[in-house]
Amino acid sequence: MTCSFLSRPRLAAASMSLALVLGTAGCQKPAGGNEAKALAEAQVKALDEEWSKAAEANDLERTVSYYAEDAYLLPPNAPLATDKKAIRASWASLLGPGVKVSWKVSKVEAAQSGELVYLVGAYKLSMKDPQGKPIEDQGKLLEVWKKQADGQWKAVADTYNSDLPLPGPEPAKK
Amino acid sequence: MTCSFLSRPRLAAASMSLALVLGTAGCQKPAGGNEAKALAEAQVKALDEEWSKAAEANDLERTVSYYAEDAYLLPPNAPLATDKKAIRASWASLLGPGVKVSWKVSKVEAAQSGELVYLVGAYKLSMKDPQGKPIEDQGKLLEVWKKQADGQWKAVADTYNSDLPLPGPEPAKK
Repeated sequence: MTCSFLSRPRLAAASMSLALVLGTAGCQKPAGGNEAKALAEAQVKALDEEWSKAAEANDLERTVSYYAEDAYLLPPNAPLATDKKAIRASWASLLGPGVKVSWKVSKVEAAQSGELVYLVGAYKLSMKDPQGKPIEDQGKLLEVWKKQADGQWKAVADTYNSDLPLPGPEPAKK
Repeated sequence: MTCSFLSRPRLAAASMSLALVLGTAGCQKPAGGNEAKALAEAQVKALDEEWSKAAEANDLERTVSYYAEDAYLLPPNAPLATDKKAIRASWASLLGPGVKVSWKVSKVEAAQSGELVYLVGAYKLSMKDPQGKPIEDQGKLLEVWKKQADGQWKAVADTYNSDLPLPGPEPAKK
């Protein structure tokens, strides 16, 4: 797009006040464009890497801090969590001693307006079952992030599921 | 795009009204704004309802037609599908005689720029296991839609997982 008025000398006097009116949301970067999109993608990708490190460190509070207050978490084999309390409970049931989870992103795409981003990635999870037997899981994830009113990026929707086939029925005992 | 109104003479006189126009939406409606957002949400919600009906009718081709060519499908307990062929194969393994699947959306949110939308919903699935035993599943889903270059909305990322707990180990035979 062009904002031709900005280069017109006669409008120089008006441009100062216009700039104030337009602020960051005005004609120079109207509601985004490629710069806003690329910036959003870079910001969210970096935050997502931090997020994975928080989870890998089994830091429950820091892990939960990446969600918006009204975020949705869709954990497999459990009900939809629609608030921070339920999201915290879901993570609390996963993280703990002997657990190691981390993930990496393979696709990041922001809206042109630069306030909404989705990303796809892959996770790895090591833990032990109630009998102490090691479990190695791997799967994929889909996250949506939204820039909040205060300018902070938070995850507003987050889900994951395993790549591994469901455990089949036990072989018949003979 | 251009901000043609700004090329009018007598800009100073217009600045009050300009401020009002520009106030929340920037350069008249550069890349969206609330109208574009609301329209996108309504369009995608309506398409998603159609999509559920296509799946409920076991119409494989129509179901797959809602995905973008480069869409990602994240099916539970199976690898990430990153193209139409793999997505088709995933749906082909689910749909068929005796299968009934449908879903409803509970949250729809578009970017301000109006070309990217995510939605959260709940699905119901009835089918039979290989032994002919009825299976009733219910779960949740997260979809991301993007308006394509030709103006059509397509799903670019789609995933779902069950609300039901994983089947536990068979009770020990005594």
